Amino acid sequence: MDSVVIVSGGMDSVTLLQFLVKREKRDPAVMTFQYGQKHSREIDCAKAQVALLGIKAHMVVDLRATQAIFGTSALVSEDISIPNIQDVVGDNQPATYVPNRNMLFLAYAVAYAESLKVNRVFYGAQAHDLYGYWDTTPEFLARLNDVYSLNRKDAVRIEAPFVQYSKADVLRTGVSLEVDYAQTWSCYAGQDKACGKCPTCAERLKAFEEVGLVDPISYAVS
Amino acid sequence: MDSVVIVSGGMDSVTLLQFLVKREKRDPAVMTFQYGQKHSREIDCAKAQVALLGIKAHMVVDLRATQAIFGTSALVSEDISIPNIQDVVGDNQPATYVPNRNMLFLAYAVAYAESLKVNRVFYGAQAHDLYGYWDTTPEFLARLNDVYSLNRKDAVRIEAPFVQYSKADVLRTGVSLEVDYAQTWSCYAGQDKACGKCPTCAERLKAFEEVGLVDPISYAVS
Repeated sequence: MDSVVIVSGGMDSVTLLQFLVKREKRDPAVMTFQYGQKHSREIDCAKAQVALLGIKAHMVVDLRATQAIFGTSALVSEDISIPNIQDVVGDNQPATYVPNRNMLFLAYAVAYAESLKVNRVFYGAQAHDLYGYWDTTPEFLARLNDVYSLNRKDAVRIEAPFVQYSKADVLRTGVSLEVDYAQTWSCYAGQDKACGKCPTCAERLKAFEEVGLVDPISYAVS
Repeated sequence: MDSVVIVSGGMDSVTLLQFLVKREKRDPAVMTFQYGQKHSREIDCAKAQVALLGIKAHMVVDLRATQAIFGTSALVSEDISIPNIQDVVGDNQPATYVPNRNMLFLAYAVAYAESLKVNRVFYGAQAHDLYGYWDTTPEFLARLNDVYSLNRKDAVRIEAPFVQYSKADVLRTGVSLEVDYAQTWSCYAGQDKACGKCPTCAERLKAFEEVGLVDPISYAVS
């Protein structure tokens, strides 16, 4: 193994995994997190993709013991509704933000990389068009790497190859790599069918429309 | 509550907790980590100190499910001996280093702080005299705060009030605050009595000698 990649089972991270294996000829270990998200079904997608590619190591980290921390997010709490896309446009910290989630995931991934003696961590941060989280930006990544560069022995570097991509760019990349998007899950709401209205559904559908393809998963709205 | 403080149960973090409560009149929530360390006895000390001060919230985070990650450290692995102090002087990453431990602890503490809607995290990093870890320095802290300052909503700031202190300075502070050092544990080795030889025992004993006091805990060597 030569790296660690964080794979949620969503479009971006699954495309990233396939990109690293098929195009970059990487041999990554995969890390996935169960933090009580309503859409835990994405974890099954992560497992399916890992099996498909014959990945050697997949660590699923269960964070549910500290779910009290993450319960302030609409992605976890049953008391907070998942907002629709129009409710989050222009919001610099929508209700779907999970407290310090990306820092925590990346800290785990770097720890895993150090223990495997590899010096690259990849994650699927991607510049959203309509709303955004503070911990998915190029500036966030640059400053975080400034911290990790202080490690005096085999410092790990974090890379987000899609950070400047739009969702449509990610999809185009994935299509060229023959990614099976039926085995990915984005919807925050955690129902049988994707809701089609939450921020991540809206972005996913927009990307498929831009690329001129039909999303293979089922939606509750037509 | 107005902050989160990471307390291992060692000298530095216990002194920090008492300093925050008694001198700074803070009302902190406490966070402690069980990561499979041989010296898990320190956790009992953390609990004792928390009880003593009437702290309102104490979250003990159990990381043992991912112990495979931390098992490359002498603090965790039964296959790696705890080095003596003379073996680590001048080593920029001794065998007692735990992969990315401080980043992980701080990521949890910041997540906890965000969920409590408080914007300060404290930890007991302290500039060692004889050896050091990359993730306890003033530069590490400054760069990490540069990352967190990007959070657009109620950004958390991390502070390490003792970062420029020697261990003797910490002890002097604690003595003035009437800290009960019998209820602290430093030794890495995890035996009934402190070994007196490991890096943290050596530094602790040196600090007591400098301050002209006798350490109240029992040592295997005289």
